[in-house]
Amino acid sequence: MSGTTQPGAEPFTQRTPRVVAARRLTRRVERDRTGRFLAEGVNAVAAALERQLVRELFVTASAQQAHPELVAAAHERGVRVSPVTDRAAAALSETVTPQGIVAVCDLLDRSLDGLLPPGARLVAVLVDVADPGNAGTVIRVADAAGADAVILAGDSVDPHNGKCVRASAGSLFHLPIARVRDTAAALSACRDAGLRLLAAHGYAEAALDSLDLAEPVAWVFGNEAHGLPADVLREVDTPVRIPLYGGAESLNLATAAAVCLYAAAMAQRRSSGG
Amino acid sequence: MSGTTQPGAEPFTQRTPRVVAARRLTRRVERDRTGRFLAEGVNAVAAALERQLVRELFVTASAQQAHPELVAAAHERGVRVSPVTDRAAAALSETVTPQGIVAVCDLLDRSLDGLLPPGARLVAVLVDVADPGNAGTVIRVADAAGADAVILAGDSVDPHNGKCVRASAGSLFHLPIARVRDTAAALSACRDAGLRLLAAHGYAEAALDSLDLAEPVAWVFGNEAHGLPADVLREVDTPVRIPLYGGAESLNLATAAAVCLYAAAMAQRRSSGG
Repeated sequence: MSGTTQPGAEPFTQRTPRVVAARRLTRRVERDRTGRFLAEGVNAVAAALERQLVRELFVTASAQQAHPELVAAAHERGVRVSPVTDRAAAALSETVTPQGIVAVCDLLDRSLDGLLPPGARLVAVLVDVADPGNAGTVIRVADAAGADAVILAGDSVDPHNGKCVRASAGSLFHLPIARVRDTAAALSACRDAGLRLLAAHGYAEAALDSLDLAEPVAWVFGNEAHGLPADVLREVDTPVRIPLYGGAESLNLATAAAVCLYAAAMAQRRSSGG
Repeated sequence: MSGTTQPGAEPFTQRTPRVVAARRLTRRVERDRTGRFLAEGVNAVAAALERQLVRELFVTASAQQAHPELVAAAHERGVRVSPVTDRAAAALSETVTPQGIVAVCDLLDRSLDGLLPPGARLVAVLVDVADPGNAGTVIRVADAAGADAVILAGDSVDPHNGKCVRASAGSLFHLPIARVRDTAAALSACRDAGLRLLAAHGYAEAALDSLDLAEPVAWVFGNEAHGLPADVLREVDTPVRIPLYGGAESLNLATAAAVCLYAAAMAQRRSSGG
């Protein structure tokens, strides 16, 4: 039975072939080749189990003791649970303080087809976002704001990158995610779904506090250093700047996304009376 | 003349006593002892010069070439400009990619007395915030939202920490900052200034989208892992939760602060018709 842990079986070390193979999933090329990625930590593993995406769960003795409910949930779903040494867990981890629980999961991203459900009201589009921590934080904010989907467009980072998974704190598993090289196609899909396209842009004429945000919108965010390309700014309905009431010249990507996404989410709910 | 650079003078190395002394300012104990700290990078140095807080400017040959206006501004203000080698600049830097321009500045923080100007409408209070990057990002957001002051209360990190200075992107110099061990005194000062005390708290009954935020407020934010202590939650007027419309269990500190501070800043301006 693949779903049970052999009591007394020797834990896998960092040299056990299945651990070695899993470790390779920290590299994007290997994730793309195998269709798998690693999700580390309690939040992420719980959310991945919920979504039935886990293929194997590596767990240290102490993590097994600390989170029996996760190990039980894995067993229940017929997921192979593999005890590992602390050093093996550290080898699978990209953090300074490994949590001792790492899942091999199926990739999450899907195509644009059917990504946006009928009645979608809030979508986040990340264009050429380079930093995985930023991408993960924006995915977490989008999830919190009740977004219907997140699209990573153009040259954006792989959302299955370990730093992105970690920064998303489980949210990567909570809402549909698509990766699309063709940014124009991503924008078209949003427009076809009836969404108004707003782009966060520091030099825009329209200010966030002057807009009616109650209608369904897709918020488009650009690269941390370079912002949005000119052709994307031409393509959207309205470039929007966050008003800077004090001396700051800008906000960073994650806090800007938080302000924009929540401004829309709260305005939509105010206007619908709930 | 201390305000001029000797053309052709040998640049300081990482072993030059003034560089060695400046380098010690990366440690809190040394900052507290000397009343000085280091501000690195173009934004921070420009803002520090503006505020007349710079005592000495260390600059590499290439940074001097890239930013002649900063060096000129330093000369104009009679600030000692000291050419340094790339290695000396790296020794003074806490980043992976040093910018080659570092200022020794007077500490910024002031006491609570007179911190809050008459008519203050928006203040951020950080209680026991541990991560300097988070503190700096919240200071940047508070500045962007037009806050009148930021108070670092309780066990919060030193805002002059290099990571905090960097994350604030110059904002540390834009608005009054106080450090106060006694959190209750910080809250009293806000209340005495006529501010309503709101605390960001995940388990609060009142939701952000149900509140009238147009009146003058102090937003109180807690530690990244533990949130706000019970006595602080009892002391404030209203604990407030950010509504989580999707599957996320929480937001991180910086994005939560962005949502709260901007919700108040925009509501205040809407209600005043500007």
